[in-house]
Amino acid sequence: MPEDEQKRSYEELEREVARYRAAYEVMRALGGTLDLDELLDLIITRITEVMEADRSSLFLIDWESEELWSKVAQGVRFMEIRFPMDLGLAGAVATSGEILNIPDAYNDQRFNQDFDRQTGYRTKSVLCVPMTNKEGERIGVIQVLNKKSDDAFDDEDEELLSALAGQAAVAVENSRLYEDQKKSFISFVETLSTAMDARDPITAGHSSRVTLYSLAIGEVLGYSEKQLEVLNAAALLHDIGKIGVPEVILFKDGQLNDEEYKIIQTHALHSLNILEKIHFVRGQKDIPMMSATHHERLDGSGYPLGLIGDDIPEAGRVIAVSDIFDAITSRRHYRDRMEFIKVLRILDEESRKNQIQPEFVSAFKNLSLDRIVKILEEDNTELVPGEDMELFAAVTLGEFQQLIENEEGDLSADERDLVERFKCAYDRCHDGSRTDGN
Amino acid sequence: MPEDEQKRSYEELEREVARYRAAYEVMRALGGTLDLDELLDLIITRITEVMEADRSSLFLIDWESEELWSKVAQGVRFMEIRFPMDLGLAGAVATSGEILNIPDAYNDQRFNQDFDRQTGYRTKSVLCVPMTNKEGERIGVIQVLNKKSDDAFDDEDEELLSALAGQAAVAVENSRLYEDQKKSFISFVETLSTAMDARDPITAGHSSRVTLYSLAIGEVLGYSEKQLEVLNAAALLHDIGKIGVPEVILFKDGQLNDEEYKIIQTHALHSLNILEKIHFVRGQKDIPMMSATHHERLDGSGYPLGLIGDDIPEAGRVIAVSDIFDAITSRRHYRDRMEFIKVLRILDEESRKNQIQPEFVSAFKNLSLDRIVKILEEDNTELVPGEDMELFAAVTLGEFQQLIENEEGDLSADERDLVERFKCAYDRCHDGSRTDGN
Repeated sequence: MPEDEQKRSYEELEREVARYRAAYEVMRALGGTLDLDELLDLIITRITEVMEADRSSLFLIDWESEELWSKVAQGVRFMEIRFPMDLGLAGAVATSGEILNIPDAYNDQRFNQDFDRQTGYRTKSVLCVPMTNKEGERIGVIQVLNKKSDDAFDDEDEELLSALAGQAAVAVENSRLYEDQKKSFISFVETLSTAMDARDPITAGHSSRVTLYSLAIGEVLGYSEKQLEVLNAAALLHDIGKIGVPEVILFKDGQLNDEEYKIIQTHALHSLNILEKIHFVRGQKDIPMMSATHHERLDGSGYPLGLIGDDIPEAGRVIAVSDIFDAITSRRHYRDRMEFIKVLRILDEESRKNQIQPEFVSAFKNLSLDRIVKILEEDNTELVPGEDMELFAAVTLGEFQQLIENEEGDLSADERDLVERFKCAYDRCHDGSRTDGN
Repeated sequence: MPEDEQKRSYEELEREVARYRAAYEVMRALGGTLDLDELLDLIITRITEVMEADRSSLFLIDWESEELWSKVAQGVRFMEIRFPMDLGLAGAVATSGEILNIPDAYNDQRFNQDFDRQTGYRTKSVLCVPMTNKEGERIGVIQVLNKKSDDAFDDEDEELLSALAGQAAVAVENSRLYEDQKKSFISFVETLSTAMDARDPITAGHSSRVTLYSLAIGEVLGYSEKQLEVLNAAALLHDIGKIGVPEVILFKDGQLNDEEYKIIQTHALHSLNILEKIHFVRGQKDIPMMSATHHERLDGSGYPLGLIGDDIPEAGRVIAVSDIFDAITSRRHYRDRMEFIKVLRILDEESRKNQIQPEFVSAFKNLSLDRIVKILEEDNTELVPGEDMELFAAVTLGEFQQLIENEEGDLSADERDLVERFKCAYDRCHDGSRTDGN
């Protein structure tokens, strides 16, 4: 039956082309990103299509905690889910490294019906394969559910999904290496800026707080993830140039004379000079200018370059607002920290005098009080009672300012209570968490 | 002729399977590494195979300098070659973005015969396609030479090579993003350690020199590229903990009292504490301990932990040798720098007393004099005449030590001349390039 054999192998060939085409397309897509969240999402989407399944999931193995974990898109963010690595069919594959091809999950004792119960989904056929990296280590499992055309997944499906899982493993490993490297960079930036601030109890935590305020403003302004990343690094590094200012002047107790003040001001130019020597990655090349312009003022009265208006990078203008806010809510060698009402008035005044950008001050005032308190508390989250924080969550800085400007006027009992509680929290944050208490 | 049509499409199908299989295999290989050198090598090798060509090359476009560049394996290292981006067939494709398929290169005016002339190769058929990234930017070209089976490359070859070039572009971009991130990290480390050392003219350049000595020792010890990378970061960071020592003590002129000396010594523990907060990537997790143990001694008499022998990480033991060498060849606040003969004797003595590792001192003494002078000169390469450097290249530190230990004895005129020239270079490096002159 040569005729028949020829025909059969022709169909085989067709299927092989289809499989290769599918695998090729998936691989092409996987190469397209090094962002882990994006990648995991892409793998799931493409594999569901190619495997003609109804759903897929990918779980990575955390060998240390012996858990499987996954990221699930939740609007624009990703949420992490975790469970013990011996749970369910995915757990069985993660533990044994063997492929499981189950026509009806409910006939298999290992199947964990909890997910179906929680989501109202009805799982039937399941194909679950291990993801193995180049070194032969099992790094995760991919699971496809409910084959669309047939009753169950067949041998060819097993083969195809295994090949795809191998590719997914390679892509995930590359992405992890890349993200690991990114994390290493930013953790070094963070650690160094913290260590530098910590030389003087008065400035301890300054860069970190300025960064958190700046990121909060960025969020109100609708910055993208990437923009926030750049702003984060720029803000953490804004005072790096203080390494070029002698400690005897930088940490001097009491008022500075003119000459000393000029030397302190050189830190902004030092920041620029130091940061310009660093190789920043694509998309982050403006960090030196962003960092170094946090003392520039819109009217050109600032330093180190005396830039005017839009010539100051936007991030520099954002950091300027945060930097002023942190400076006046903190004690300095030559003055005590300010009353909160005065702090807000100073921001308004600077904005009115065309020193700092009104829009960014407005964005800052759009933040809720609890956000500010969380930053002021630093790691010391016990300082302010939870019930107070709940109250603070409902009030923005701007609204609060209206209240306290009105304090002499007709406030309700609740409003008076809020004002008292916030004043108390503000004081406690300074006396408790920071070593600059008097 | 349905029979015929069936047969034709069957063969087409076979070719399609073959093409997909080839593309799939190349893509699989490309996913396997983020190291750019390795990747470029891999692309060339795989594409030559798949395209049944005799040779291939890949050129990346440097849009800034308007050049094409490539890396060519040269033993275990890679050498960069560059030429103007309008040169030859590769240049034509880089400039126009169009595919060139030439049956006989010598009939095409754009073909640059120089390479053939230099290498004795005889190019005939050439297929050259652009590499375009996801954003549609041209990033390079791939060129395959001398189709093996046929006279020239055909339409299907064009199609396949274009697909492969697209994949290669994606892989190269990923690899570049990764390498860019790595470069950013190490440049930050370098810049920060340099800025910290520069606070005091006496220590300016110290971390950088210690790093260069350590890498030189690592090379003598046969360290791999990866090991050298880790050693590089660890050495650059060894004194990072000095940020935790007040400048008034750190830069004090004259002898330190016991208490001050103890405070200075805390820098090693500070290095450990700071570095442990940093997220280091896989393979670099030991950097904190490597950096922080540069004052540990084999007999347990060192600090901060009093570790003994092999409990001190090897990199820490290497950095210890470099750190001692740099300290005694430099001026300090409390003493002048030492005569070179005394420097070498101190290394021997410390090694004899079981303080530092004899093997690493030996490795260090295996370095040629010019290597040491280059490090001492720093950026000031004019300090020592080229003819002297040539002499120095032929003599190791160890051989030189024998000479000077023998100085009173029977040296030849040439040997006496060498000793004089080196002493002179050693002095000039200190008086000229460094601001610590006396």
